[in-house]
Amino acid sequence: MITRTLSELAAELGGEVVGDGTVVLKGVAGIREAQPGDVTVLANARYEPQLAETRASAVICAETPRHCRVPQLRVANPYLAFTRAVRVFRPDLYRPVPGIHPSAVISRTARVGAAVSIGPNVVIEDEAVVGDRAIVMASVYVGERAVVGEDCWLYPHVTLREECTLGKGCILHSGVVVGADGFGYALDEGRYHKIPQVGNVVIGDNVEVGANTTIDRATTGSTRVGDGTKIDNLVQIGHNVVIGRHCIIVAQTGIAGSTELEDYVTLAGQVGVNGHIRIGTHATVAAQSGVVKSVPPNAVVMGYPAMIHQAFKRLQGYVQRLPQLFQRTKDLETRVGQLERDRVREEVR
Amino acid sequence: MITRTLSELAAELGGEVVGDGTVVLKGVAGIREAQPGDVTVLANARYEPQLAETRASAVICAETPRHCRVPQLRVANPYLAFTRAVRVFRPDLYRPVPGIHPSAVISRTARVGAAVSIGPNVVIEDEAVVGDRAIVMASVYVGERAVVGEDCWLYPHVTLREECTLGKGCILHSGVVVGADGFGYALDEGRYHKIPQVGNVVIGDNVEVGANTTIDRATTGSTRVGDGTKIDNLVQIGHNVVIGRHCIIVAQTGIAGSTELEDYVTLAGQVGVNGHIRIGTHATVAAQSGVVKSVPPNAVVMGYPAMIHQAFKRLQGYVQRLPQLFQRTKDLETRVGQLERDRVREEVR
Amino acid sequence: MITRTLSELAAELGGEVVGDGTVVLKGVAGIREAQPGDVTVLANARYEPQLAETRASAVICAETPRHCRVPQLRVANPYLAFTRAVRVFRPDLYRPVPGIHPSAVISRTARVGAAVSIGPNVVIEDEAVVGDRAIVMASVYVGERAVVGEDCWLYPHVTLREECTLGKGCILHSGVVVGADGFGYALDEGRYHKIPQVGNVVIGDNVEVGANTTIDRATTGSTRVGDGTKIDNLVQIGHNVVIGRHCIIVAQTGIAGSTELEDYVTLAGQVGVNGHIRIGTHATVAAQSGVVKSVPPNAVVMGYPAMIHQAFKRLQGYVQRLPQLFQRTKDLETRVGQLERDRVREEVR
Repeated sequence: MITRTLSELAAELGGEVVGDGTVVLKGVAGIREAQPGDVTVLANARYEPQLAETRASAVICAETPRHCRVPQLRVANPYLAFTRAVRVFRPDLYRPVPGIHPSAVISRTARVGAAVSIGPNVVIEDEAVVGDRAIVMASVYVGERAVVGEDCWLYPHVTLREECTLGKGCILHSGVVVGADGFGYALDEGRYHKIPQVGNVVIGDNVEVGANTTIDRATTGSTRVGDGTKIDNLVQIGHNVVIGRHCIIVAQTGIAGSTELEDYVTLAGQVGVNGHIRIGTHATVAAQSGVVKSVPPNAVVMGYPAMIHQAFKRLQGYVQRLPQLFQRTKDLETRVGQLERDRVREEVR
Repeated sequence: MITRTLSELAAELGGEVVGDGTVVLKGVAGIREAQPGDVTVLANARYEPQLAETRASAVICAETPRHCRVPQLRVANPYLAFTRAVRVFRPDLYRPVPGIHPSAVISRTARVGAAVSIGPNVVIEDEAVVGDRAIVMASVYVGERAVVGEDCWLYPHVTLREECTLGKGCILHSGVVVGADGFGYALDEGRYHKIPQVGNVVIGDNVEVGANTTIDRATTGSTRVGDGTKIDNLVQIGHNVVIGRHCIIVAQTGIAGSTELEDYVTLAGQVGVNGHIRIGTHATVAAQSGVVKSVPPNAVVMGYPAMIHQAFKRLQGYVQRLPQLFQRTKDLETRVGQLERDRVREEVR
Repeated sequence: MITRTLSELAAELGGEVVGDGTVVLKGVAGIREAQPGDVTVLANARYEPQLAETRASAVICAETPRHCRVPQLRVANPYLAFTRAVRVFRPDLYRPVPGIHPSAVISRTARVGAAVSIGPNVVIEDEAVVGDRAIVMASVYVGERAVVGEDCWLYPHVTLREECTLGKGCILHSGVVVGADGFGYALDEGRYHKIPQVGNVVIGDNVEVGANTTIDRATTGSTRVGDGTKIDNLVQIGHNVVIGRHCIIVAQTGIAGSTELEDYVTLAGQVGVNGHIRIGTHATVAAQSGVVKSVPPNAVVMGYPAMIHQAFKRLQGYVQRLPQLFQRTKDLETRVGQLERDRVREEVR
């Protein structure tokens, strides 16, 4: 088993030890799951109270937290340091060995790089390319002229349709479908006629795509996902969508056709984004929002239709107070009625 | 063809015959689909009116329904009795025969139990375990050290990633992905760095998971699903989520990371649940709700942000009456204006 | 490379040339993506402004658009003409060649038609039927007694469960699951008992189903999808749902059990439809709506709970004006208070 004293870990990750540096660590864990011998992380002040009960033997944090009774490793970026700590204690992470399984069906015209790992029942069609060191696991399908970049990792049951391309170091989780036909029809005499989807999907470098997410090919041209963007599970990305670099798209979000996301956009879970609009750089959309029109850079929007979050919360507050408003109006009606009756009495006097 | 008189069926299922027990039954069907010779079920008073038009020859119910002209089998739990009736008339339900297809790729170090059925193109990796009588259908992937419990049934194209475990009698439908990496990154200098997801997924006994549902592995520790819980299609369960026993999670619902569901929680369709919160035992969340904070036991919540359903419906009622409220305010302004003008007239008198 | 002058294209597609018919075209593209040599399409006046900047060499449209400086091909149905234009310039669209891959596992009792294309690792079970000219791509699973109609196209990793049937000319995209068990349980003594799902799924002719969409088999009888209906990605269709002909169901929509859609219904993205209700012919449901009760024919509904869209927008307008309403009420309270004080002063006079 791999062990480190807190001081040894500090030497490897950088950072300053506060408290007993001789404590022996043998694993990493979340604040709640941690057992004695684990180092945990406090990346968000919101979870500081949980530190009071943690059984962890040490914590990685930015500043000394309140009610923290365990030794600390203080670093500039706790989450990043934690990420490195995981690799220290778990260097054994599962990774298929290089080699090509005899059951793989690989076209003679496909180009397969060096040191790749290709699993059982993989299918690689004509003129497809698989880059060096790529991992293509069981039952993955790589279509004609599709490109899997160097150091990509495709998990079992990924479908990469014809002519779609992945940059370097991409991770596609199981059930991902890249390049299915976009959803487009021409209505004529009561029948929907399929618009051939002759474009493709172009994915940049270091993109991760979650399980069972679907990214449709363009009608013409390309659906694009920029470098470093991370997409969660069960997300739908429509045809001709263009996603910038370093975006975060959380689970079950849907983006309709031809919409553009600039760089560093964050879409929380179950968001819906209308077609043919633009989300500005560093904009954030809260969970379950429905974005019907373009969003300016740096905006934080929520609700349906999505609005600036302060406006949404203000309106929510007013809605919560509707019962009182109805009562106040009722009272006013009584008081005004009384004043009117008094007035009439005077007149007749 | 299998036939039973209503009296014979009563003898097999228990319950009391009301009306002609000699009527001959040869199948089961819903109230609307039923044909003469079918027995149907009334489990919910809401569908009682449909009974007037049903062509069924008999109905399983708890009490004699209004406008019911067909013989009845009265039982304590109609739905349960119907479930048994299906098995009486359809003992032939599809079930793969035991045996291992020659195209299956099974590691020499995997442990495969007795009387299993392993279909074509199945892949079972090193040190994986498949329990006795398990059914593993075509193109299923079972990762390294993963465990499929006794009497489990995995439908075609299931992915069970390394080190994830299923209890006994679980059913995983096609396209289910258990153990894909959780969605976690550390942002550093404008780049998202992947947090290795070194935990696993632990699923209890008699859990059913619907088609294309995704259950992510934990960052560290385990994502858990308790015994008897039933999950519908296209559901997303985030890393380190802990789901109790006998929960019902309806289609397209998403549960964010580290949230806990206690036992007997019901989440209706398209619900979104925030991360790091707790849903109390026997709580119910209505369809499309967004749950942002913890929910107490036995609560019924709905809306966004989710609130106790009476409060939600009350607010909805007020919102519906906003047009009248605006009109009432306008009238008040007119009346008060008149009173003020009269007042001024007096002053000058 | 294939080229056409605009006049030649007009001769093939029909329609009238406005402007220079000698311009040479070599491809098709969207208004924004188009390059010189491309013909584009204006099917929606909303995108007319984009025409001012397009680099396309010609545009297919219904009437001469404003600020349009490029030659036009005027037709009655621009989108339909564009669809045909795509086929003119891209006759080479990817299509697997007929033949049966040696790795396919096909039951001796299955019936496979003429000129089919069956890819690697396909599994076709006992008594299944694959019609003439059908394309069944890699790793598709066709269950016992399932039927794939003539000219169907099943993309990699489709699952068609036992006894489910597809009409002629259907397209099923990767990851589609047809015939997984419906979600039904009988609760007894704190345990959920599975209701056997002994029905099937019956899909009509020319239906297209998007990637990773799930269509559950009926408890008894059939879940049905009518001729010409088009379903997008990640849609959930519950057991015993009946969908009419020529419906459009956009991505991530969910339809609960036993609900009926009449013909020509449109459900936009992320819609949720309650169980056991009816959506009338030509009705439209806006994105993210929650439909809790039946919708009459030709209605356009939106919101949660879904209401006629004019009513929804009117209520939205009132909600937006709540801040002013609260202020107006506050002012009224002040003015009425003043009137009351004056009144008291008079009395004492």
